[in-house]
Parts: sequence; structure tokens; C-alpha cells
Amino acid sequence: MTRGRFITLEGGEGAGKSTQLRALAAALRARGLAVVETREPGGSEGAEAIRGLLLTGSADRWSPRAEALLFAAARADHVEKTIRPALDRGAWVLSDRFLDSSRAYQGMGELTDGDVMTLHRIGSAGFLPDRTLVLHLDEGEAERRARARDGDEADRIGGRDDAFHRLVASAFARFASEEPSRVRTVDASGDATAVTARLLDALGDLLP
Amino acid sequence: MTRGRFITLEGGEGAGKSTQLRALAAALRARGLAVVETREPGGSEGAEAIRGLLLTGSADRWSPRAEALLFAAARADHVEKTIRPALDRGAWVLSDRFLDSSRAYQGMGELTDGDVMTLHRIGSAGFLPDRTLVLHLDEGEAERRARARDGDEADRIGGRDDAFHRLVASAFARFASEEPSRVRTVDASGDATAVTARLLDALGDLLP
Repeated sequence: MTRGRFITLEGGEGAGKSTQLRALAAALRARGLAVVETREPGGSEGAEAIRGLLLTGSADRWSPRAEALLFAAARADHVEKTIRPALDRGAWVLSDRFLDSSRAYQGMGELTDGDVMTLHRIGSAGFLPDRTLVLHLDEGEAERRARARDGDEADRIGGRDDAFHRLVASAFARFASEEPSRVRTVDASGDATAVTARLLDALGDLLP
Repeated sequence: MTRGRFITLEGGEGAGKSTQLRALAAALRARGLAVVETREPGGSEGAEAIRGLLLTGSADRWSPRAEALLFAAARADHVEKTIRPALDRGAWVLSDRFLDSSRAYQGMGELTDGDVMTLHRIGSAGFLPDRTLVLHLDEGEAERRARARDGDEADRIGGRDDAFHRLVASAFARFASEEPSRVRTVDASGDATAVTARLLDALGDLLP
């Protein structure tokens, strides 16, 4: 049994991660691969319970520090209970967000990127994806799509200002430049089928 | 307004922490101090919600790594929302368990003491008690008291074997030897009034 591959989709809101994750999973299944679709925060029974704590209550329910620890705890459970077992039985695992979202969203304020990586070392032994696909949209397009989907309402994770979204985008760009073999930026503009083709292309060296 | 003092009570199960915390709080109030009684895991709205996750479900619901992150997240919330504000308004805060319990219970297996301290640095900026009182009972006495209280039932935190309890006791002894000005071991044998007097004595240099 060959171990499966762990692929994460990252990017700001409105980039089409959820849609593309489903399309990519279908394309991989069409090639005969077993595929597990998952997401963060969540993806296992315990992590979904932690997700419930993270996404309910007022926006300032958790301090940035407590929030980062909760994300790391959820990720530890997700890795141990869902991701590693699936990979061990040969499945490919596609996750809508993973560590790099914590780095981009939580590692740029009160906490550093080093702190987020330390939490991941302690929680998940530093477990990394085989490939991380960052869906990139220019700022205007991302905002247009997010508004079309969510209206003007802000939720616990979304609803931050433009400067924040630019910081997140620049963080993802930095991860791609620092770890080019793991992290690939993919143009998320244009029609969905074309984007899926680009994602498959960015996995070409990993496909059997 | 003088800042209050942060006092933690630690020790294995059956040492009488909860009883002594109430008695110590009463003795401090009798001296005119404002006192806040709290406990871990919990002690703030968010931390109590995390406590709910930690103490429900099967004993192996959480891996040691996820559990340590959840304790650190709860502690971050407890420090920020309950402990620091109370100290800032001049109250003394007494907590039934704090960081040293995580060090003793979680920092001796898959995780190291250094890992637990790192989580505390990231979660709570390394915030330490002004004084930690370790209630010490010899092994036989602690077991007898725990059985008298709980019967033979094991819960999510208790119910471990003798070797484990010896490890916990030796961890607390080590903390006291490593940080003698913060951590004091107090003999918890004999009648409750005598124990409370010993605890007050161990706070003598901090009392106004």
C-alpha cells in the first residue's frame, strides 16, 4: 500500500477554495485515487467540537493567544484522528485550510510565525502537507466574490478590513517564496474548470 | 490601589486542595483582603467551555498533545479574563490548580516540561503565581482520602495508577526545589484547621 498524499488548499476568502476542493477531489477520484475531503478548523469529532467554540460567541470571545492554541489543538486532533489514518490506508487527503492559514491569520499580530510553528511542533510534531496550493485572486476580484456569496455580513472569521486581507495575501506569497517545493501559488481567476486544471497541473509531480 | 497577589494550590488528588482553598480564602477575607476563588481547568466563561470539552467523552478522547493545547488555551482565557483583572483591582486570587498541574500531569510523557512552559509563554506570556502552595500527603494517606471521597470510580482526570501518582508527587517536589521562592510544599496531614494555619504561614511574607 502506497501512502497517500496530503494536499492543502489555502487562500483568502472568496478565492474559491471550497468549490475547487470538491472539483479537485472529483478529478483525483476519476484517476482511480481514494480521496478524503476535509477542512479546518474541524475535520474530526474533537476538532469539530473545538470549531464550535471558535466560531460561536462574539468576535472578541477569544484573545489571539487563546485562539491560536485552540486552532493548534483542533489541528492536533485532525491530524491524529483523520489525516494520518487516511494517508496510512493509501487515501489522498484534501483539506480546505491547514497550518498556513494559522500562520497567515494568527502569526502576524500578537503572535509570531515562529510561535505558530512552535504550536504546530508541539501539537502535531510539525506535520506538513506534501503540497499546499494557494488560490490567488487579485484584491478586487476576491472582494467581489466574497460579497456575492456572503452579502455584507461579517462572520467570526471573515469581515475584516482591506489592510488585513492584504496582509494575509502577502503572508501566503511569502510562504510560497520560502518553501517553493511545498507551496505553489495558483491563479484562481477565470472559470472554475480552468482553475481546477491549473491545480491538477500543480500536483503533476505527485500523481501516480 | 496595591495589586493583589496570585496564589495557586497544587497537589495530587485527595490532598484537600478544594477544602483548603475555601478555608484560606475565608482567613484572608478575615484580614480585610478582597479574595477571588477560582479553579482550573476553567475559571472564566471561555475556559469553562473548554473544561467541558476536556472532561466529557471517553478517557482517550484527546491525545496528550491536543489535551495540553486545550489546557493552555483555557489557561490563557482564565489569566486574561479572570485573574489579571482581579489582581489589577487589588483582589487576591486563589486558584485550585494552575500551570504546575499541567507541568506535573502533561509534561512528563509525550510532552516535556519545556513544551508545557513554551505553551504557557505563548498563551499567557509566561504569567506566574506570586506563590504556589503544594499540598503534600504521603501516598497511603492521599489514596485513603481520595477513595473516601470518590469511592472506587475513576473519572477523566483521576483514576490513574500508583506509579503515575508517584510521578506527579515527584514532579511537584522538583518544582519546589527548583523555584523555592515561588513554590512551597506544605504538609497536608492532620486536621484541616492546622493545615490552613500552615498555608497562611507559607504566605506570611506576602501578607500586608
